[in-house]
Amino acid sequence: MTRPLRVALLGCGTVGGAVLRLLDQQSGDLAARIGRPVEVAGVAVRRPDRHPEVPAGLLTTDAHALVTRDDVDLVVEVIGGIEPARTLMLAAFAAGKSVVSANKALLADDGVALHEAAAKAGVDLYYEAAVAGAIPMLRPLRESLAGDQLRRVVGIVNGTTNYILSRMAETGAGFTEALAEATDLGYAEADPTADVDGFDAAAKAAILASLAFHTAVTAADVYREGISAVTAVDVARAAEIGCTVKLLAICERVPAPEGSGEPDSVAVRVHPAMIPTTHPLAAVGGAFNAVFVEAEAAGELMFYGRGAGGEPTASAVLGDLVAVARNRVAGVAGPGITTYAGLPARPIAETPTRYHVSLDVADRPGVLATVAQEFARHGVSIATVRQDGHGDAATLVIVTHSAPDAALSTTVTALREMPAVRGVTSVLRVEGLS
Amino acid sequence: MTRPLRVALLGCGTVGGAVLRLLDQQSGDLAARIGRPVEVAGVAVRRPDRHPEVPAGLLTTDAHALVTRDDVDLVVEVIGGIEPARTLMLAAFAAGKSVVSANKALLADDGVALHEAAAKAGVDLYYEAAVAGAIPMLRPLRESLAGDQLRRVVGIVNGTTNYILSRMAETGAGFTEALAEATDLGYAEADPTADVDGFDAAAKAAILASLAFHTAVTAADVYREGISAVTAVDVARAAEIGCTVKLLAICERVPAPEGSGEPDSVAVRVHPAMIPTTHPLAAVGGAFNAVFVEAEAAGELMFYGRGAGGEPTASAVLGDLVAVARNRVAGVAGPGITTYAGLPARPIAETPTRYHVSLDVADRPGVLATVAQEFARHGVSIATVRQDGHGDAATLVIVTHSAPDAALSTTVTALREMPAVRGVTSVLRVEGLS
Repeated sequence: MTRPLRVALLGCGTVGGAVLRLLDQQSGDLAARIGRPVEVAGVAVRRPDRHPEVPAGLLTTDAHALVTRDDVDLVVEVIGGIEPARTLMLAAFAAGKSVVSANKALLADDGVALHEAAAKAGVDLYYEAAVAGAIPMLRPLRESLAGDQLRRVVGIVNGTTNYILSRMAETGAGFTEALAEATDLGYAEADPTADVDGFDAAAKAAILASLAFHTAVTAADVYREGISAVTAVDVARAAEIGCTVKLLAICERVPAPEGSGEPDSVAVRVHPAMIPTTHPLAAVGGAFNAVFVEAEAAGELMFYGRGAGGEPTASAVLGDLVAVARNRVAGVAGPGITTYAGLPARPIAETPTRYHVSLDVADRPGVLATVAQEFARHGVSIATVRQDGHGDAATLVIVTHSAPDAALSTTVTALREMPAVRGVTSVLRVEGLS
Repeated sequence: MTRPLRVALLGCGTVGGAVLRLLDQQSGDLAARIGRPVEVAGVAVRRPDRHPEVPAGLLTTDAHALVTRDDVDLVVEVIGGIEPARTLMLAAFAAGKSVVSANKALLADDGVALHEAAAKAGVDLYYEAAVAGAIPMLRPLRESLAGDQLRRVVGIVNGTTNYILSRMAETGAGFTEALAEATDLGYAEADPTADVDGFDAAAKAAILASLAFHTAVTAADVYREGISAVTAVDVARAAEIGCTVKLLAICERVPAPEGSGEPDSVAVRVHPAMIPTTHPLAAVGGAFNAVFVEAEAAGELMFYGRGAGGEPTASAVLGDLVAVARNRVAGVAGPGITTYAGLPARPIAETPTRYHVSLDVADRPGVLATVAQEFARHGVSIATVRQDGHGDAATLVIVTHSAPDAALSTTVTALREMPAVRGVTSVLRVEGLS
């Protein structure tokens, strides 16, 4: 063993602190696995006085100077957000240092350019921790499934919303009440927008889709709906048809019509959906994450584990750190991403989806026919319908077959305006039905 | 792109045939992902006349000549078994060719020596397909979790036995009947010994344990019990205590007593066990496989998917092929295995396990006390006991706390000889209880 590999740590919050602890606790094992010891060269933070646990000699406020220092070999970026993370990462590459990052927002926004900068410098950019925390997910997509064709990647990738939806299902609570509970317990942040409105999941979906389909996908390409409009009625209706409500990140390769000569397209979306309770994703409760993959040859796969938290995220960071350190010792860089497929992004309006629609209607002859006609008029085929009469009113619960999302949403709008329809009580997309 | 990378395929059964089909179907994508096209240089089989689907010019019976040919860059070994696979693999390494293998038996027997030979030649040895078919499992263990400490790896890694046990639970059938059904449906081979007696699972357990604990573990180190002794009564008893019976491959790091100065040890075992129906592994039915991992920092992870079949296994082979081809293009070799930890293997007798024991006893005062005393005499603590009287007899269902396996099995032997015990009706280990 020669001189230690020296790591610059950018950021020292929950994840950074856990990375420091694990680097210390496992120094012997890491050295054996890498072939050289690893030590911390410095820790860049905004307020050094807030980090009494870090040896003062390591702390600095000048992150840029740290990442470009000659005695730094590898950089771990756990600041999050776009800037200054982006500038620091580019500076690290330019100085010949590989970077391990947990920064989903940045990678989702600018992954291709960052990969290009890393490749140009002959260094690595790894970010397993950016998606689904501790779950090894990106490496399997990038490498293990590199010989297969992926059809779909469907993930529960946000623990906060999964906790809220799980609690709504367990207690019958509405969204506001369940969010308040999540906030009290520390499962939701004071400003829960990034989680609740699906921004966090959308960034992860963009990263998953890019790797799955060898195509540049950014967060801007992702259709996004959060869970704040999910009601207790939606959750109850889901249970009635053997489903549960989850916020799903769905990345699909949509085949072009046969003989059209057009390329396949990639549809990436984040929205709440009903899935059958028999689906492997349905059982993923609380703060857990899971990613379900459908590949041509491999068939169905699922990856399950903790999606957040200091230690789980640090585990993913350290796994990447071992990989880039081994590459550094071997004098090579690992495989980057490929975007050769360049498949066009499919807008949500043209993406095939299925809807569940619950209606309160007048219970008189001909109403079901009128409603069914409205679906047909928009080219939407009905898969199942259940009618329950109660006095002069009735409830219609309809699950459609697959149709372009625009046809489905237009149908719902039209239904709302029908005289026979007293109210549309629940509308949610349905996934995972055979 | 320069000249194609040329692949020698050894064996052309179910998996080899699927590899050939996928190489052909995905040639464009593979070339883009690797940076160079891939083509088949030759296919070594025993009986060329049985492979009309393979161009005759590619077929050869001389596997040794094929793997050492100058125009061959990479070797895919899907013959299985120890010889001639071992000799051919060593010849490939000696000739400077990387090998992708699906050969669990060989890797479990001789993995360390083969890795050494590959490292010496500066080439790769990858074998994702050897364990849990299509499920990316070895790469996550080798790489993604390389910065963590693994505590346990528990897998359902044999589809045949999982199918049989699933059917026993669903239909109440006995082992013999369920095996006959599996054979009829093609889920069990004509000679089912390797699956039913746990040899297949033991080989996979050895490979998983080696990677998980950075320690050389061979199939000979694995304690092994198959499922042929599992009865309908065992399955029924499991259901009564909220469990299901699975054949588990369990790889554990057993901590040394604190302050003993001894190293931790590694216990690797394959046996049927009751697990709670709430455990993520309990829902893994039929021909699916899953591997549950507990790591210090990452927490609980699970990997789920198809464990066998031509296409799923070929997906794993091709993922490895892309990886070794990329390495070849880059002029490097990937990380091998490390066995630096060298932890001693713990014999089953000293491995802590928990037992479920069901007894028919005489229903008279003092019997429970006598039985409980027998457990205590062997240092075994009882976690739960349920007594059901019926006439002058009673059933005792006991689940123990954790104790050395030898203490538990000795207790059972002693119980069988107690006058008050009319019969021991079910004994199975229990896993996954909190």
